[in-house]
Amino acid sequence: MISVAEAQARILADLRPTPAEIVGLSEALGRVVAADVRARLTQPPADLSAMDGYAVKSADAEKGAILRLIGSAPAGHPFSGTLEHGQAVRIFTGSVIPQGADAVLIQEDAARDGECVHVRESVRPGRHIRRAGQDFRAGEVVIPKGKKLTPRDIGLAAAANYPWLFVHRRPRVAVLSTGDEIALPGEPIPEGGIVSSNAHALAALIRAGGGEPIVLPIARDDVGVIAEAANAAAGADLLVSTGGVSVGEHDLVQSGLSKLGFEVDFWRIAMRPGKPLMYGRMGETPVLGLPGNPVSALVCGLLFLWPLLLGLSGLTPEPPATTRARLGAPLGANDKRMDFLRARLSRAEDGSWVATAFPVQDSAMLKLLAEADCLILRPPHAPAAATGESVEVLRFAAFGL
Amino acid sequence: MISVAEAQARILADLRPTPAEIVGLSEALGRVVAADVRARLTQPPADLSAMDGYAVKSADAEKGAILRLIGSAPAGHPFSGTLEHGQAVRIFTGSVIPQGADAVLIQEDAARDGECVHVRESVRPGRHIRRAGQDFRAGEVVIPKGKKLTPRDIGLAAAANYPWLFVHRRPRVAVLSTGDEIALPGEPIPEGGIVSSNAHALAALIRAGGGEPIVLPIARDDVGVIAEAANAAAGADLLVSTGGVSVGEHDLVQSGLSKLGFEVDFWRIAMRPGKPLMYGRMGETPVLGLPGNPVSALVCGLLFLWPLLLGLSGLTPEPPATTRARLGAPLGANDKRMDFLRARLSRAEDGSWVATAFPVQDSAMLKLLAEADCLILRPPHAPAAATGESVEVLRFAAFGL
Repeated sequence: MISVAEAQARILADLRPTPAEIVGLSEALGRVVAADVRARLTQPPADLSAMDGYAVKSADAEKGAILRLIGSAPAGHPFSGTLEHGQAVRIFTGSVIPQGADAVLIQEDAARDGECVHVRESVRPGRHIRRAGQDFRAGEVVIPKGKKLTPRDIGLAAAANYPWLFVHRRPRVAVLSTGDEIALPGEPIPEGGIVSSNAHALAALIRAGGGEPIVLPIARDDVGVIAEAANAAAGADLLVSTGGVSVGEHDLVQSGLSKLGFEVDFWRIAMRPGKPLMYGRMGETPVLGLPGNPVSALVCGLLFLWPLLLGLSGLTPEPPATTRARLGAPLGANDKRMDFLRARLSRAEDGSWVATAFPVQDSAMLKLLAEADCLILRPPHAPAAATGESVEVLRFAAFGL
Repeated sequence: MISVAEAQARILADLRPTPAEIVGLSEALGRVVAADVRARLTQPPADLSAMDGYAVKSADAEKGAILRLIGSAPAGHPFSGTLEHGQAVRIFTGSVIPQGADAVLIQEDAARDGECVHVRESVRPGRHIRRAGQDFRAGEVVIPKGKKLTPRDIGLAAAANYPWLFVHRRPRVAVLSTGDEIALPGEPIPEGGIVSSNAHALAALIRAGGGEPIVLPIARDDVGVIAEAANAAAGADLLVSTGGVSVGEHDLVQSGLSKLGFEVDFWRIAMRPGKPLMYGRMGETPVLGLPGNPVSALVCGLLFLWPLLLGLSGLTPEPPATTRARLGAPLGANDKRMDFLRARLSRAEDGSWVATAFPVQDSAMLKLLAEADCLILRPPHAPAAATGESVEVLRFAAFGL
């Protein structure tokens, strides 16, 4: 058995991100940019007014002065003339500052009377002017390669004049469930069988992680059938299987994939839930074999599939980041396997997190997993821990999971 | 001017969530369930083995005993007979426990020799058996109404035998940008004009919040044109406008919408950035008028549009939740307007957040907003604050923004 950290390091080594594709700006949210986005223009393009008011020469605009209104320049309609001494031009937020003006008298500090503008407060030079290039200049990198695009980045890319963006293609992830005992939801269930949940949960996790799931038909517990099913994953960036990787006689997935040239790297990890994890490559394609228990499959999905998805998407492939919390209830000592306890989170009065493990931790209890807010990490051989002790947790909400 | 909290309370009062629609399980991630999801079956459906090994009578399985192997029951292939004293049936994780057996001897504790199974460790009654209904029972609520579906919930709904789910329809949100000076990215830019960024950033925010954006064509600064453009929002669950809600002569959006029966509730908020915010209703449809400055539009988007989206989606409409952080640099005293400072976040050695405001806070600087990790909240009249003082922040990552 190898440690969780070693398994993560081996899985994330030598990952190649997907190549780039072009997407419209309106479809680029959450995608990872594959090249630096350099501004195609300078923003603001000229000195602009930051307020509604009057463009003036600051030397003229002393408190008590009266200026003559010579025109108006709404945003998008620059004033074509040049401002001379004693003059003012009506302007608005976003208006280009007319030639000859060096400040804005805001309208709250002015009184207008026909063509006369009375100055009620003196104006400093440069006041309420947004300088050309204050936000960014043409050629400047506004979004660095490898960033996942937020709504703010989408706005920034628009302002930098990008109708299209180069982003990494969504990783295509084939999901293969195996087992004679499982049926699709709503379909006939074999005697003693259960409804397949792993493939659907993992497909959702793949979507949440920016990938494109390809859910393959369920393969019967037969080496040839599994090989044929996995063959349908050709062209995928990653193949994920669930079930069939246990220590019993039914280690069929590995045998099935071996027919397609699968080379196993490792397949047992010192963790709970989820010991029987398998990793390797089929040609260039990474293959991750997750346990069949739904809780184990999803916990391993967060620990191993999630960072794989990030790496394939062009992000830095790192194990999911933990948060610190205090224990809401004591925990016993741990054995040699790293433990990931399903737990509730609440807030202490000082705003810090309090994590309380569920009393029952069976790896087949999906309902409790769905109700959990986090996993408490218990390192191998961790001693018993009292209420209030600090522990590391993986918050599901931190990953949108 | 009204406070941010009052504006949020007024916006979120009397919100009606969208009606339900049916979506396939594979499309339900991130949707909000519109009715309790009750399990359609009991899980596990029968007592199942939690391990690979042998089904036995615990009374027989004392250390040193030899049992006779009478059959095998892989998962999905239950053993049809009844186990008698001195017998064992080969079983696997997920296999139905045969009639007559009351425990599982795990294979690590057994040695097999033809039809003989040597017991190496005594077995307690009930050991390694997952009881029928341990996860959930038919009829039990497994996902409560109003929950946003995570990948774990998708797995749970599958296990509960749901191929379809009732979810709230995605709120349709029409986005109207106005202004003679703005152009779409990649299209000809008028003299003194800029590229429109607000509509694209807001559309992305709407998507991130579970809504379906409808980006209306840009309306010129003309009351009639604005009225016609807004009319195209018929059938939307919410209309969001940007720009044209300032205090100057160009308050065109309100005039335009008034032609369509718009009734304004309020339109000035004691906050920075973002004072000129407008809210009201056009018939049944809520209308949110955001400022034209890109930073103001997005900050107001998080404070007011985001909770509106949650409420329309069927979630509890609440102002976005803050986190506590310590200041990484001192802040001056605040005036009467609540301030939302763009800031970086880092982690202190004890794992707590440290927020450091950018020195420049101009509301037109979109690049700095995109680089920010959070907004530091500065209440009205907050006194100067020293490095290390505790403040409230809105973490963009906490909202997936």
